[in-house]
Amino acid sequence: MAPAGGPGEKKGILERLESGEVVVGDGSFLITLEKRGYVKAGLWTPEAVVDHPDAVRQLHTEFLRAGSNVMQTFTFSASEDNMESKWEAVNEAACDLAREVAGKGDALVAGGICQTSLYRHHKDEVRVKKLFQLQLEVFIKKNVDFLIAEYFEHAEEAIWAVEVLKESGKPVAATMCIGPDGDMRGVTPGECAVKLVKAGAAIVGVNCRFGPSTSLKTMRLMKEGLRAAGLKAHLMVQSLGFHTPDCGKGGFVDLPEYPFGLEPRVATRWDIQKYAREAYNLGVRYIGGCCGFEPYHIRAIAEELAPERGFLPPASDKHGSWGSSLNMHTKPWIRARARREYWENLLPASGRPFCPSLSQPDA
Amino acid sequence: MAPAGGPGEKKGILERLESGEVVVGDGSFLITLEKRGYVKAGLWTPEAVVDHPDAVRQLHTEFLRAGSNVMQTFTFSASEDNMESKWEAVNEAACDLAREVAGKGDALVAGGICQTSLYRHHKDEVRVKKLFQLQLEVFIKKNVDFLIAEYFEHAEEAIWAVEVLKESGKPVAATMCIGPDGDMRGVTPGECAVKLVKAGAAIVGVNCRFGPSTSLKTMRLMKEGLRAAGLKAHLMVQSLGFHTPDCGKGGFVDLPEYPFGLEPRVATRWDIQKYAREAYNLGVRYIGGCCGFEPYHIRAIAEELAPERGFLPPASDKHGSWGSSLNMHTKPWIRARARREYWENLLPASGRPFCPSLSQPDA
Amino acid sequence: MAPAGGPGEKKGILERLESGEVVVGDGSFLITLEKRGYVKAGLWTPEAVVDHPDAVRQLHTEFLRAGSNVMQTFTFSASEDNMESKWEAVNEAACDLAREVAGKGDALVAGGICQTSLYRHHKDEVRVKKLFQLQLEVFIKKNVDFLIAEYFEHAEEAIWAVEVLKESGKPVAATMCIGPDGDMRGVTPGECAVKLVKAGAAIVGVNCRFGPSTSLKTMRLMKEGLRAAGLKAHLMVQSLGFHTPDCGKGGFVDLPEYPFGLEPRVATRWDIQKYAREAYNLGVRYIGGCCGFEPYHIRAIAEELAPERGFLPPASDKHGSWGSSLNMHTKPWIRARARREYWENLLPASGRPFCPSLSQPDA
Amino acid sequence: MAPAGGPGEKKGILERLESGEVVVGDGSFLITLEKRGYVKAGLWTPEAVVDHPDAVRQLHTEFLRAGSNVMQTFTFSASEDNMESKWEAVNEAACDLAREVAGKGDALVAGGICQTSLYRHHKDEVRVKKLFQLQLEVFIKKNVDFLIAEYFEHAEEAIWAVEVLKESGKPVAATMCIGPDGDMRGVTPGECAVKLVKAGAAIVGVNCRFGPSTSLKTMRLMKEGLRAAGLKAHLMVQSLGFHTPDCGKGGFVDLPEYPFGLEPRVATRWDIQKYAREAYNLGVRYIGGCCGFEPYHIRAIAEELAPERGFLPPASDKHGSWGSSLNMHTKPWIRARARREYWENLLPASGRPFCPSLSQPDA
Repeated sequence: MAPAGGPGEKKGILERLESGEVVVGDGSFLITLEKRGYVKAGLWTPEAVVDHPDAVRQLHTEFLRAGSNVMQTFTFSASEDNMESKWEAVNEAACDLAREVAGKGDALVAGGICQTSLYRHHKDEVRVKKLFQLQLEVFIKKNVDFLIAEYFEHAEEAIWAVEVLKESGKPVAATMCIGPDGDMRGVTPGECAVKLVKAGAAIVGVNCRFGPSTSLKTMRLMKEGLRAAGLKAHLMVQSLGFHTPDCGKGGFVDLPEYPFGLEPRVATRWDIQKYAREAYNLGVRYIGGCCGFEPYHIRAIAEELAPERGFLPPASDKHGSWGSSLNMHTKPWIRARARREYWENLLPASGRPFCPSLSQPDA
Repeated sequence: MAPAGGPGEKKGILERLESGEVVVGDGSFLITLEKRGYVKAGLWTPEAVVDHPDAVRQLHTEFLRAGSNVMQTFTFSASEDNMESKWEAVNEAACDLAREVAGKGDALVAGGICQTSLYRHHKDEVRVKKLFQLQLEVFIKKNVDFLIAEYFEHAEEAIWAVEVLKESGKPVAATMCIGPDGDMRGVTPGECAVKLVKAGAAIVGVNCRFGPSTSLKTMRLMKEGLRAAGLKAHLMVQSLGFHTPDCGKGGFVDLPEYPFGLEPRVATRWDIQKYAREAYNLGVRYIGGCCGFEPYHIRAIAEELAPERGFLPPASDKHGSWGSSLNMHTKPWIRARARREYWENLLPASGRPFCPSLSQPDA
Repeated sequence: MAPAGGPGEKKGILERLESGEVVVGDGSFLITLEKRGYVKAGLWTPEAVVDHPDAVRQLHTEFLRAGSNVMQTFTFSASEDNMESKWEAVNEAACDLAREVAGKGDALVAGGICQTSLYRHHKDEVRVKKLFQLQLEVFIKKNVDFLIAEYFEHAEEAIWAVEVLKESGKPVAATMCIGPDGDMRGVTPGECAVKLVKAGAAIVGVNCRFGPSTSLKTMRLMKEGLRAAGLKAHLMVQSLGFHTPDCGKGGFVDLPEYPFGLEPRVATRWDIQKYAREAYNLGVRYIGGCCGFEPYHIRAIAEELAPERGFLPPASDKHGSWGSSLNMHTKPWIRARARREYWENLLPASGRPFCPSLSQPDA
Repeated sequence: MAPAGGPGEKKGILERLESGEVVVGDGSFLITLEKRGYVKAGLWTPEAVVDHPDAVRQLHTEFLRAGSNVMQTFTFSASEDNMESKWEAVNEAACDLAREVAGKGDALVAGGICQTSLYRHHKDEVRVKKLFQLQLEVFIKKNVDFLIAEYFEHAEEAIWAVEVLKESGKPVAATMCIGPDGDMRGVTPGECAVKLVKAGAAIVGVNCRFGPSTSLKTMRLMKEGLRAAGLKAHLMVQSLGFHTPDCGKGGFVDLPEYPFGLEPRVATRWDIQKYAREAYNLGVRYIGGCCGFEPYHIRAIAEELAPERGFLPPASDKHGSWGSSLNMHTKPWIRARARREYWENLLPASGRPFCPSLSQPDA
């Protein structure tokens, strides 16, 4: 099996989705680079693209090898209200890094914006849109392939973002950081999806704040909302790499473990294969991850959907499907783990007998 | 606070330990690079130093930034019996990468060897020692600063390794991958420590296969063994980054979760601060990690022992001590997490209510 | 404090509820007597009233001492279709035992019927009602104080039961064994409540199959259904003594632990005090238990609601409120448990580190 | 199968054990009657034998039906220092109740004494022995079949008890409430066993404070101690009915859940069958239970060892072996539970996802 893309020009995001292809998104930047020492928790800003470009390039490269078809610019929170004078240099450098790595494989570059700090305090449409506009200008100058408005907890602000982005003429994806209970003002997932599509998004879905199974519940509600409204759009999911069945409406930030005690919740690769399959069965064709989604999680998506896509990602050279690389182990009980049934049915222990399974969210 | 090292020549490993300094080791290469897509589980060989040097360089850099004083050559299993003709190029490239990154901070280069596949089948001292000798020749040519014989489950083979390495005249550290029950033939930790020191190791301890608290139990037994024998040596611990209270004698490889379902066992940074403090209180002065030990875990050691060392590592620029970077969060209940008591007492949930806390080892 | 009742005639069930009194129900007979050796699991029939009357009398006595105001005749499944020729003797003996014990305190006798085996196979109203009629005749002859139709999973059959019972002129309570998802044909809890009241039940609610918190969710839905329909009725809840947050629509019988591995789910007395308080706050005034509800659980209801009722039950002579009887213990850390905050906040461990927290129901 | 005993005189305890018979002990009185409303936690005194004899008789009867061969007098803590002037009436009534029920089956009466409050404060051999002597006089007057000195945490006091009891000429059993770490002064289980046998006990072992698997570890150490000393004695175990792998030296009283939150730790009947089998395999022939051991747990011992004993207990009329009574259930997935493999392998969930598996003991 070999990647579909050839030497010529790459297919665009909508062309791919409209032809029924699976698009594998990328994974976690903030949380992953926090653990690698390049992002400060609490601030969650991407100055590393300027200060430590090798670290960012390496992470892009790992996602590309894992099978990602999209290199999102590492511009989360990189709007002027969060980064002051540095914002422009950061957005430019992020575009360059994403483009550089995308050029080494079958990946597109997506310029990404997210909710603003400003909106929380001043629901001033003109000022908020101005912030989006500034980032968009960089993305246009750098000629990204498409645009993603992500991590919005209010449908209203997400709509404003879509309205700005669509002016560029580039395809726009929009994902909210909501769960099945909807946005912070009670707009249901179905209504959010409808509003975003009506505002101009070609691709809608959720990213962040909820784990795989909860995110898919939200996607189901979005899908139903669109169908009920007679609208069509491509579906996109970028779940957390953490299990969060105990989340309330606010998602994982309200869990007592956020952000420095989430380790026991990290999904296994097998959990992610299940997530990829269920997303696919639900009709979602843009499948990636958000916080906590490491390169091997992305590879798990690519491996699960290899039959549909027709090829394995480069990093599968270093991974035997379903544990098959254990089949030469000297210990017979470890060799016995080299099979699908074993890993599919494993219920992994936490090694923490004094800890509970679930937490009460703080809010 | 600033690193102690100056522009001149670096202090050697024994000089540091003899003056009472804390030496912070590095962390996980195999498991970490497996998740990043560069190492194949089951084989666990380091061909990435040749095939993907950027990925290896990046990981070294992260450990350096996190506070490591030692860059171990990524030569695990890189003996001739495992890697055939590639072995020499791999050992050489690994030395070069370690040296390159070590040169950017206050770190030494340690050439590392580990137990051989050969020993399992043929306990032939001459042939096994020959394998060690070959790797040693590369380390001498590349002029590493000191040597580590690590991951030995049999005291006998570890002794052979020490005997070979000490011929170089360089300081030798030796760590076994055993728990409190001792080596595979029942040699107790205390006896192992005594034998290794008598064979010529200046630094002894354990690495891998057991989690933080179990590894420290083993260290306590080693320390007692040395004291009872009237011997002196520096102590070194490089624990797993996984909690494994349920391990049997064979350690984590016998747990049903090994190697693809260990996620819920990953230690938090706070667990590692506790480990660093307990290791220090026990008299261990070379403190690092093994499989599962990510850069932020190494940083946790450096932060916990910053009062003793007199400085914080570079990566602490991106980390507020004890969660202090959360103190500006907009949600008051998240701000309330910006304090030591919070994280010290947190009992993190697994998010996996259908999974148990402990597993029965397979052997 | 002393019980309200005097030497004269007892207040009837409706008189009590209409005056705002709390009525404390009784608890588990089948499961409790199974553990004591007098009931066979699977059959769940009450032949013990004839074969081992002392055992049944003793359990009635324990509930009376614990504060129960109702002695339910132990006639569960004692219809002709389940017990053949023995049915009449069993119903008569059960009435006598309940009356004998009720006479020793402030308790009424309630004749109880439940869903039939016949209904499952033949939804024949005439035949099913005939079975109810037969039991009712015994209850009338023995002059029970009121009637309970309980453990119905189909609203239709429950309605038939109420229709039969109300012909007696005695007050009728009706409880279904459903959860928030409603009856087996999807009749919601609110609709069930409405139908039962319209059929003639003065008291409605749920018993069995779901734990305390789930049962109260169902009660809330029943209450809302009645309010929306403009109907008034007294509310009654008799929850399991087991925690079952993982139940599906079929309740605890579908959990893999049913019926011989439910031990880790047994509620503490403190869990039940919380249940009693929440039921009270919801407006429920007939509060008791079903399977797994031991005498000390009933006492917990009576103790929690002692301020409202004005007295403690007899068995509180053997129970210090909120652990106060520990205040003379010789070990100071055990004395420290003699306070409300301690027990209210305790998160009791299972002592079973190889077991999960939740199960997947079998159906 | 039918009980061995005939109409004539019963075989004595030593006669049984010497002929290789399994003797099934009885179970929990204090904790069980606390839940039934007749014993006050903290005091743990048996005034119920006088105040509520029906409740005590009923519990004896349940144990007899469950297969117990021994009715222990309910005289725990009934020494003069705990019960003042009531002590004599309590001991007499307890003997009468035990004898009355024992007469209805193949059971012996054992007079029981336990450690004194006096010993804790005044290690005055004469005064302590006087307390034992007083109870013994009642037991002799009532002609119990043998004597049990139980629940001793100090070997010294247990020896005094044995010395007093053996003067009667009746067989003496002695069980300590210790775990593998030995008595409160560090006397090992092996040493305790040796001392007790030398003092005159014909039967030695442990009761209370530790769960099944921990108690069997202690028994193994006692057995080894006796063998090493060249002594012979019959072995006896009466474990808690609670799982307590997290206990420290002081046993379950130091767990935070003691005594009002132990519910999640209650053993299933299958856990107890395993315990009975392991005890038997270890050579223990007197097998019963202590706190938390309900009648159905005793039945589980009798059922597990029915092949060796040749008969089932009376209460097995109400229990299908290994869940076989479920084989007629209407739901096929419940019928599927009617087999040994199902229950042997079940890992029962706690239904408490916010609670841990293990606790840190308070001391």
